[in-house]
Amino acid sequence: MSIDQSRRQFVAGAATAVVGATVARSALAALPEPVIQTSVETAPPLIPNSGRPYNPVVTLNGWTLPWRMNNGVKEFHLVAEPVEREMAPGFTAQLWGYNGQSPGPTIEVVEGDRVRIFVTNKLPEHTSIHWHGQRLPSGMDGVSGLTQRSIKPGKTFVYEFVARRPGTFMYHPHADEMVQMAMGMHGFWVTHPKGKHPLIDEVDRDFCFLLNAFDVEPGSKTPKVNTMTDFNIWAWNSRIFPGIDSLNVRLNDKVRIRVGNLTMTNHPIHLHGHEFQVTGTDGGPTPKSSRWHEVTTDVAVGQMRQLEFVADEEGDWAIHCHKSHHTMNAMGHDVPTMIGVDHRGLVQKIQKVAPDYMLMGERGMADMGEMEMPIPDNTAPMMTGQGPFGPLEMGGMFSVLKVRKDQPAGNYKDPGWYQHPAGTVAYEYSGELPTAPRQQAAANPTATTTTVKAKKPGMTPGQH
Amino acid sequence: MSIDQSRRQFVAGAATAVVGATVARSALAALPEPVIQTSVETAPPLIPNSGRPYNPVVTLNGWTLPWRMNNGVKEFHLVAEPVEREMAPGFTAQLWGYNGQSPGPTIEVVEGDRVRIFVTNKLPEHTSIHWHGQRLPSGMDGVSGLTQRSIKPGKTFVYEFVARRPGTFMYHPHADEMVQMAMGMHGFWVTHPKGKHPLIDEVDRDFCFLLNAFDVEPGSKTPKVNTMTDFNIWAWNSRIFPGIDSLNVRLNDKVRIRVGNLTMTNHPIHLHGHEFQVTGTDGGPTPKSSRWHEVTTDVAVGQMRQLEFVADEEGDWAIHCHKSHHTMNAMGHDVPTMIGVDHRGLVQKIQKVAPDYMLMGERGMADMGEMEMPIPDNTAPMMTGQGPFGPLEMGGMFSVLKVRKDQPAGNYKDPGWYQHPAGTVAYEYSGELPTAPRQQAAANPTATTTTVKAKKPGMTPGQH
Amino acid sequence: MSIDQSRRQFVAGAATAVVGATVARSALAALPEPVIQTSVETAPPLIPNSGRPYNPVVTLNGWTLPWRMNNGVKEFHLVAEPVEREMAPGFTAQLWGYNGQSPGPTIEVVEGDRVRIFVTNKLPEHTSIHWHGQRLPSGMDGVSGLTQRSIKPGKTFVYEFVARRPGTFMYHPHADEMVQMAMGMHGFWVTHPKGKHPLIDEVDRDFCFLLNAFDVEPGSKTPKVNTMTDFNIWAWNSRIFPGIDSLNVRLNDKVRIRVGNLTMTNHPIHLHGHEFQVTGTDGGPTPKSSRWHEVTTDVAVGQMRQLEFVADEEGDWAIHCHKSHHTMNAMGHDVPTMIGVDHRGLVQKIQKVAPDYMLMGERGMADMGEMEMPIPDNTAPMMTGQGPFGPLEMGGMFSVLKVRKDQPAGNYKDPGWYQHPAGTVAYEYSGELPTAPRQQAAANPTATTTTVKAKKPGMTPGQH
Repeated sequence: MSIDQSRRQFVAGAATAVVGATVARSALAALPEPVIQTSVETAPPLIPNSGRPYNPVVTLNGWTLPWRMNNGVKEFHLVAEPVEREMAPGFTAQLWGYNGQSPGPTIEVVEGDRVRIFVTNKLPEHTSIHWHGQRLPSGMDGVSGLTQRSIKPGKTFVYEFVARRPGTFMYHPHADEMVQMAMGMHGFWVTHPKGKHPLIDEVDRDFCFLLNAFDVEPGSKTPKVNTMTDFNIWAWNSRIFPGIDSLNVRLNDKVRIRVGNLTMTNHPIHLHGHEFQVTGTDGGPTPKSSRWHEVTTDVAVGQMRQLEFVADEEGDWAIHCHKSHHTMNAMGHDVPTMIGVDHRGLVQKIQKVAPDYMLMGERGMADMGEMEMPIPDNTAPMMTGQGPFGPLEMGGMFSVLKVRKDQPAGNYKDPGWYQHPAGTVAYEYSGELPTAPRQQAAANPTATTTTVKAKKPGMTPGQH
Repeated sequence: MSIDQSRRQFVAGAATAVVGATVARSALAALPEPVIQTSVETAPPLIPNSGRPYNPVVTLNGWTLPWRMNNGVKEFHLVAEPVEREMAPGFTAQLWGYNGQSPGPTIEVVEGDRVRIFVTNKLPEHTSIHWHGQRLPSGMDGVSGLTQRSIKPGKTFVYEFVARRPGTFMYHPHADEMVQMAMGMHGFWVTHPKGKHPLIDEVDRDFCFLLNAFDVEPGSKTPKVNTMTDFNIWAWNSRIFPGIDSLNVRLNDKVRIRVGNLTMTNHPIHLHGHEFQVTGTDGGPTPKSSRWHEVTTDVAVGQMRQLEFVADEEGDWAIHCHKSHHTMNAMGHDVPTMIGVDHRGLVQKIQKVAPDYMLMGERGMADMGEMEMPIPDNTAPMMTGQGPFGPLEMGGMFSVLKVRKDQPAGNYKDPGWYQHPAGTVAYEYSGELPTAPRQQAAANPTATTTTVKAKKPGMTPGQH
Repeated sequence: MSIDQSRRQFVAGAATAVVGATVARSALAALPEPVIQTSVETAPPLIPNSGRPYNPVVTLNGWTLPWRMNNGVKEFHLVAEPVEREMAPGFTAQLWGYNGQSPGPTIEVVEGDRVRIFVTNKLPEHTSIHWHGQRLPSGMDGVSGLTQRSIKPGKTFVYEFVARRPGTFMYHPHADEMVQMAMGMHGFWVTHPKGKHPLIDEVDRDFCFLLNAFDVEPGSKTPKVNTMTDFNIWAWNSRIFPGIDSLNVRLNDKVRIRVGNLTMTNHPIHLHGHEFQVTGTDGGPTPKSSRWHEVTTDVAVGQMRQLEFVADEEGDWAIHCHKSHHTMNAMGHDVPTMIGVDHRGLVQKIQKVAPDYMLMGERGMADMGEMEMPIPDNTAPMMTGQGPFGPLEMGGMFSVLKVRKDQPAGNYKDPGWYQHPAGTVAYEYSGELPTAPRQQAAANPTATTTTVKAKKPGMTPGQH
């Protein structure tokens, strides 16, 4: 049976059924059927029904790879292959990834598990997988040339080791590494502790995502792989705002966010409204005496940072990279400044000689978030997204932490925009100070402002 | 009364009088008069004469915004507007800022204060203010579109919240953010603890400044707002060396320096002659068990770092960003290397075809610090500044910590250059080793070397 | 006696003899003879035979400067001068350095030592040396213009101070700093504690190296000194893979690696197979309560990080900067992506109009590591180096930690490639799972795969 024939669509809702049931029917010595993902929505956490129990993670706009148990070994099958990834509504990129998406699926195991990973190479060139941060035999470390032969196109390799220490890891090629990572090949790995761990707290919500970056010319679909600094697509799990799901939590939930960086520069991840602690790295949990509070933590390249906090402030809280260009995307970085110059009447004259000339920014660029500017097909959203109070003027590495007291029990569906209590929203001064309760109009923005216009979609409602 | 008519020049020396006295005469419900700053010198700390006492901060080449008490609420008035900022003697930029300067004034309050900030928008486009790091109602968080409507030109908005946790914060727009921050809109916010705090020490000197960066073409005045990496003006509080005041302290003073980064890259702040600890972030004070010593701390974008040390070494100690380009400024980054090439006689020939050709650097670039090279008007100083021993060959993010035993009581005026004890200055070897006391000539450099030449001003003598 | 005439070739094997013996013959008041290094191999640690004993450091592809004792003072002589540095086999750069190499030699002293350093300037422009991180008199701090006069070409200056605190420091010019550091002028300084120190552990292996970066056009030899971000040579101690020696240790050795960064960007140093702690900075040792485990630590510009771990996993473990471009080198950053485009037959047509056109990367770039592509003379290796399992496809900031149980007593010679135990190497899946002991073929790669081809040399076998 060829791998292509055995491809089975992985439907998010049926995820838990996959583990144990379907897999148990496979012949023990045969290659496990690869599970392929077609959805870009956040899959529900994959609750284990074989092996030991744990509280599973939520991969933002991603999913967890099912496995089969084979004589006490957890077996996974990763397929390295070209993929089409919808990075935001209206913008699809041709990337390389695993099992139908970029990044690859999250692998979740328990400390002490023996793990066997089959890696099939369906790329046009050789590859390998390095299990970043793991303790394992040197020959399983995945450095092509140094610790193993490369996996040629069409071949399947086997990696096998015991997940010896609990923590958050990453996986990515260590063969033609710059190109393959620039094309989107990487994924998360979570090893849950096998019992209570003094430094690993149980949490109510456990999110994870990778920071990645691409250089895709407007109107194009394939990243330029040699770019070193001048990227224009700054993404979380190969998705960009407004294509990134919100992080939905219940008031007073204990929340963990695991963030890994496989770009070419540092990303300072900033959370509004709360302070957090970094409780772990890809090197392990941090001792409590070493922790401090941040509102922005700088995640360096090749690092994972585990952020933890109690979500004790209701509302809609931005979470984003604080480098402002990384919440813009697709913006030419060499456009001259027009601020202070009055161009009225000039544009049509210029357009006679330069038909695609577009006036931008003589008063700043906020106009960009409002105007219906014609752009090439398949262009990444820039300064877009609609909030309850108007355009968000954001793109790229940006999402919203939604903290709700009344999140229904048993699910974490997107609760919609926050309904602010009276008198708690910044308001226009009208000559006298308000008396409480004030500012009811602003606290209840009309539904019309949340309408999504063509080319400027609102945030995709995440399901979990 | 229009805001323009009510503009009152804020004179540094009269700062303390503003708080309480003038303000008390305002009608309680009316918009407070905005206080405007015209000076680029470091204003003396604003000692509070209403509300609770605290040891105020010194904003490097900046100032603290006076407030009025209104029925138990501290009221501030920020005006977002285009400003002209003298970034160094001879170099003025057209920026956007608050209340006459970029960055905006420091806001200083005490833990538990209820604060009301009026924000008037005199920019040509809408804006908002995000109170980076604060605990506050979601609707006061200042994210245009997400938590409030944007502030249209000509309008005034009201923000109100309780300063719930002590610490160091920043404020900046969260509307057309990339552009408005690239134009210089940001400021500091210090919330002093309301009593003794186990992790917040009392200090003798408490400085603060923001790291900011601009891309201004030589001879131009307005920053290019789309630049992502290739900035050429690296500044502290929109000032560049030799326009940055020195940090004057007394021997054995306990010193705190609060540094915030709102550029697009990390800045490793390096202090000579002393080790410091990072005692706090914008997320709060750090536990003592988590602190260690550094001579260089990397301040990531969107982060604040609070450096503390005892100034127990007398002398003139450089403090600067350790990325060497960030202490250069305005240097073309694509000039070819001439090192090793002898061009004598060649320049005039080339200038016949390329009249602005200038030979640079066949022996390195130290010549730049010495020669009287004609440069365009209004160009940022590059490799300039005169010290007691000759040219400093520095620009940008550079200043001097001046530690003096004999700093007069009651003031921190610039003490001038350090008078080195005999035998403590590196000296030219003349064939035999010196006998103590040695090197008196070098220890007392002649006054002529401190003369400021045209185009290459020495450091501006800070008053405080 | 001129300095040139007194130049004595420093032979690695005779290093220990230099200290004490030869030096004792010098006249006490005369300038010490400068010791010059011609080798690019890792010199054996310089075991002190005068002064107090300590466990010396190993400078990767570098050496430690001998000294002479002069009336209780340790005297060193540094010569700033143009040098030719072989950065990798087949690639030599014209740099500026000290005593024959870039970087300069490591200076090793003991806490409390009085140190006198003679600095002779043989560059075409003035210079100075700043002793980064040291406690010393302000006039010995080396900031040209601020704390001393610059050292003019041909002159020798004297610095003298007590090494007051133990730790790891750097030295570099503080005169025309951007240029002189871009040309390769910097070095390490280790001050060993004078007795047992509660925070400084004794280790079995103590490595040190500096991160440095250059912009050298292919076929050229001299760095461009104005480059701010777009460097193409990413080096450790001015060496690039495969020119960087391996780090050879014995199983269960306690290992310390001291890494300093004098480039223009952060370098996240990543170690495979082990977690480490950062036990010290250039500000001093870190308290134990503040330490945590990492597999990647971000070393910011102007920082030193001291990594410590027990090497308890046998094998060949990659250690490298995790920014993938920094393990590539010399790669044009603006080459268009050809992925997905089939160019067969097209190349010869194009070469008729563009003779140097070369097809690259229609299937990725792994071909680069395999093909015998003609390149200009004196070009930095890119995606090169041969491992036991084929091409490593690496360059730049990359080396291998070799952990061996059977490393012979008394030396740390390069043990060659790791011989993997049976069944511990990732292997090709052939339709059924292996039975133990499996994968013997892969575990014993044939000798032919380690053959070094022209233009693609294997790693230089380090002696220590």
